[in-house]
Amino acid sequence: MPELGANRWGKSEVRLSKVHRGDRIDDFSDITVQVLLEGDVEAAHMEGDNSSVLPTDTMRNTIYALAQESLTRDLESFGAVLASHFLERSDIDKVSVEIAERIWRRQSETGFVGGGSERRTATVIRGADNSTSAGVDGLVVLKTRGSAFSGFPKDRYTTLPDKDDRLLATSVTARWIYEGIPTDTSATWNRVRETIVSHFFGDWSASIQHQGYQMAEAVLDAVPEISEISFHLPNQHHLPFDLTPFDIPDRGVVFHPVSEPYGDIAFTVHR
Amino acid sequence: MPELGANRWGKSEVRLSKVHRGDRIDDFSDITVQVLLEGDVEAAHMEGDNSSVLPTDTMRNTIYALAQESLTRDLESFGAVLASHFLERSDIDKVSVEIAERIWRRQSETGFVGGGSERRTATVIRGADNSTSAGVDGLVVLKTRGSAFSGFPKDRYTTLPDKDDRLLATSVTARWIYEGIPTDTSATWNRVRETIVSHFFGDWSASIQHQGYQMAEAVLDAVPEISEISFHLPNQHHLPFDLTPFDIPDRGVVFHPVSEPYGDIAFTVHR
Amino acid sequence: MPELGANRWGKSEVRLSKVHRGDRIDDFSDITVQVLLEGDVEAAHMEGDNSSVLPTDTMRNTIYALAQESLTRDLESFGAVLASHFLERSDIDKVSVEIAERIWRRQSETGFVGGGSERRTATVIRGADNSTSAGVDGLVVLKTRGSAFSGFPKDRYTTLPDKDDRLLATSVTARWIYEGIPTDTSATWNRVRETIVSHFFGDWSASIQHQGYQMAEAVLDAVPEISEISFHLPNQHHLPFDLTPFDIPDRGVVFHPVSEPYGDIAFTVHR
Amino acid sequence: MPELGANRWGKSEVRLSKVHRGDRIDDFSDITVQVLLEGDVEAAHMEGDNSSVLPTDTMRNTIYALAQESLTRDLESFGAVLASHFLERSDIDKVSVEIAERIWRRQSETGFVGGGSERRTATVIRGADNSTSAGVDGLVVLKTRGSAFSGFPKDRYTTLPDKDDRLLATSVTARWIYEGIPTDTSATWNRVRETIVSHFFGDWSASIQHQGYQMAEAVLDAVPEISEISFHLPNQHHLPFDLTPFDIPDRGVVFHPVSEPYGDIAFTVHR
Repeated sequence: MPELGANRWGKSEVRLSKVHRGDRIDDFSDITVQVLLEGDVEAAHMEGDNSSVLPTDTMRNTIYALAQESLTRDLESFGAVLASHFLERSDIDKVSVEIAERIWRRQSETGFVGGGSERRTATVIRGADNSTSAGVDGLVVLKTRGSAFSGFPKDRYTTLPDKDDRLLATSVTARWIYEGIPTDTSATWNRVRETIVSHFFGDWSASIQHQGYQMAEAVLDAVPEISEISFHLPNQHHLPFDLTPFDIPDRGVVFHPVSEPYGDIAFTVHR
Repeated sequence: MPELGANRWGKSEVRLSKVHRGDRIDDFSDITVQVLLEGDVEAAHMEGDNSSVLPTDTMRNTIYALAQESLTRDLESFGAVLASHFLERSDIDKVSVEIAERIWRRQSETGFVGGGSERRTATVIRGADNSTSAGVDGLVVLKTRGSAFSGFPKDRYTTLPDKDDRLLATSVTARWIYEGIPTDTSATWNRVRETIVSHFFGDWSASIQHQGYQMAEAVLDAVPEISEISFHLPNQHHLPFDLTPFDIPDRGVVFHPVSEPYGDIAFTVHR
Repeated sequence: MPELGANRWGKSEVRLSKVHRGDRIDDFSDITVQVLLEGDVEAAHMEGDNSSVLPTDTMRNTIYALAQESLTRDLESFGAVLASHFLERSDIDKVSVEIAERIWRRQSETGFVGGGSERRTATVIRGADNSTSAGVDGLVVLKTRGSAFSGFPKDRYTTLPDKDDRLLATSVTARWIYEGIPTDTSATWNRVRETIVSHFFGDWSASIQHQGYQMAEAVLDAVPEISEISFHLPNQHHLPFDLTPFDIPDRGVVFHPVSEPYGDIAFTVHR
Repeated sequence: MPELGANRWGKSEVRLSKVHRGDRIDDFSDITVQVLLEGDVEAAHMEGDNSSVLPTDTMRNTIYALAQESLTRDLESFGAVLASHFLERSDIDKVSVEIAERIWRRQSETGFVGGGSERRTATVIRGADNSTSAGVDGLVVLKTRGSAFSGFPKDRYTTLPDKDDRLLATSVTARWIYEGIPTDTSATWNRVRETIVSHFFGDWSASIQHQGYQMAEAVLDAVPEISEISFHLPNQHHLPFDLTPFDIPDRGVVFHPVSEPYGDIAFTVHR
């Protein structure tokens, strides 16, 4: 019978976000965790005996459960907490924990801009049509307070609860049409971007549509050359991770960010 | 006050898989759905009144709920069922449903190979070391039966139930070392790939580790030139979608495939 | 002064395709190569002395140059040729070559379908509009003969030569509108797909637009329920790699496939 | 014969970078351009007559050629220059130009940090091994001066010329091992990152290896707790685009950034 050589098992790409609540000022962490274990699992491979195979699903649960208490800005400490936890099992010889933290830059007491894929865009059409537009793509924004979603219609398939306050994140794509082209398009672009960002963070909203309309209104107010602005605001969900199955009081600060599915919101506002 | 122009809202990138159970032969669907609605939501944008805003979360639930009954091979029919469902609401004027089905090729009564990113690989090292390896990357396989996971250790953070039979999917990366280089490396590569695929589909397994060990054993048996084979077998989870909140008997055939996190399994087997 | 530990340098993601020309039947290889070297380059790191640093650009050139003669279906052999070539240098201690070959399935004497991202799609719209469409996404096709591009306008910025025959590759996205919905949408979808593929491979074309129009004409001819079909046919360029700087007779069979930029072709054909 | 409906053709994903040279201070643009044309090309689709089909290759050349003179910070102006150029042709009815500019933040007179995918990382291993490492991933940096590459070995396959000064760009991945864990790991991480960035921009280098060694030396000097640091520094090439075929004096400021292949450089430095 062939021999088992080097081996390990674990959970990869565990995405987790956490709000570090303050009185008025919140901090925010957004990490991806991998946990890999090594131990005595020869019988699992060769005979299908799972008595030493801690499920990777349990590893995932553990990461969320321990994050509520132990995840701070000090990634190395959280890594050590996780590693020590799993090493307590007598059948585990080695634990490797990798954590990668996505960088968010603070913009307000509860607002952050995500690194990334931001682009300034321009579209010029000539001939049969004639227009000049500008825009921004991939402007990732997140706020830990100041957005609600409630009072929506309920039916047989509704499970979403009303929320007075929730974490709101989106990747803004905006396009605006210039009635007249500004003298300094770069300065105007900066002014529009700044208006979008400050109203995302500053205005309370009842929904992402409501948030976006206020952003649109502010842009039209700030830049007279713009006749119309369109937004695409995918709702990038950070799902509350339910800690109650683990006999932990759930303080509502640990989330599971998901890339898919996403709420797909788009609209145009014109003068 | 600026006017609201064209607008819509919905849910995008809803991933759903379904096993069409037969007596011995199963069929399998793997789709991504987008639902977009248009209706009277001016007050939602301008005043934060959500009374007409069907939550995109409800749309998602509805897609899974209706799939159990209505999703067949006929995508257009399922699209029409979804569109009609949402159009029944008096405040909805237009529904657009887009469905994209990933292609899986049947390999056995309950086994399928996914299209994709498959690569044949070779690694040649010369100088300080000396070795010739070959491999396969991105060989995506899925079976609807013939894999269990039970008897694993339970602790405070365990929520995964024991399973006698479950859907198993992975993207195989394998690398094998040639002790001696075969005369016809292409023929050998095909034989190894065929052995991997047939043992994934043909061998019952108690875990992905157990599945992989049997594949490794079969390859070493089939090709004497190979001294060692390593597998990376990420467990690509298809999570059962719980339909019981909707007062539907859950028949266990509708799943939510997720890209992340994934079970991260790797090991080497040598003679 | 700190010490230099383990180190290597090389070229990664070198994409290369090759037509293995026959009298009537061609074969086709599509590989990505990585070459990594180790050697005596301490002075390069610590003092900026490049006398032992073979440029990664030269490695790239060498891969293309040796491919004309030495790349067959036997990846391991080509890897060994490359490794031996670089190991001939006295200042190189170790060479690692990794090759990954993308799988193409033969469909005709000179035509191939690429693995991948193929999807069957359907779009159902109800309410203000009413339509049912179907389509295919990511159907990757390539032919080694049977497509020309010549007789186009030349201006100051033209460098492209007229070509009587060239390699043509695209990733087909097609959408067709059903006037009446077929009884068996899956059978119809298969017929449309088959028609597209066989006319891509079977019809000589003067351009990708000409190729696509013939595909559209054939689909409308084959399926009476379809009133209109739209194609998006990005021209996925395989650029001839010029071997003449290396004093090698260029036989026109070695190419550099590029992802970007691409020729972006789209059109609709209706009855 | 079926009729041709809406149609257009063009070039997408044309990547272009430009250095706006100053005496001591340079500015830098990094854009992706799409040009789409509409015109009288019915005969091209239906009869294979290419006399009105401006090649997309010519569009690409034109974008680079006009960028030397006309690309400033004002994207809308460059879009208008391109649109007007193509509209001059009598057989073109409509031109659409889309430009997307990647955001780079200035860090020095000639140095920039790219938006993106930056991550702070930490790796904790416990059990059979015991170590704590930290790192940064996806830190994208570019400088327009201060890096050479010359004096390298030449052979039959060399086409790269010696360069006294060149544009240098990379996406830094660094991992460092803590001998002792710092009290404030976040402060230490910031100090290491700052040291890397400032020495990338501040130190002249003879190669990317030489650049990286100086960065490593500076980190070991700045943080006594670190015993060893490893770098992966893929050379993200910005290829000079040769304008001389167009009878334009080439001022050496227009580049073609490519994702693949890339120079793949990695090394470790320890005390």
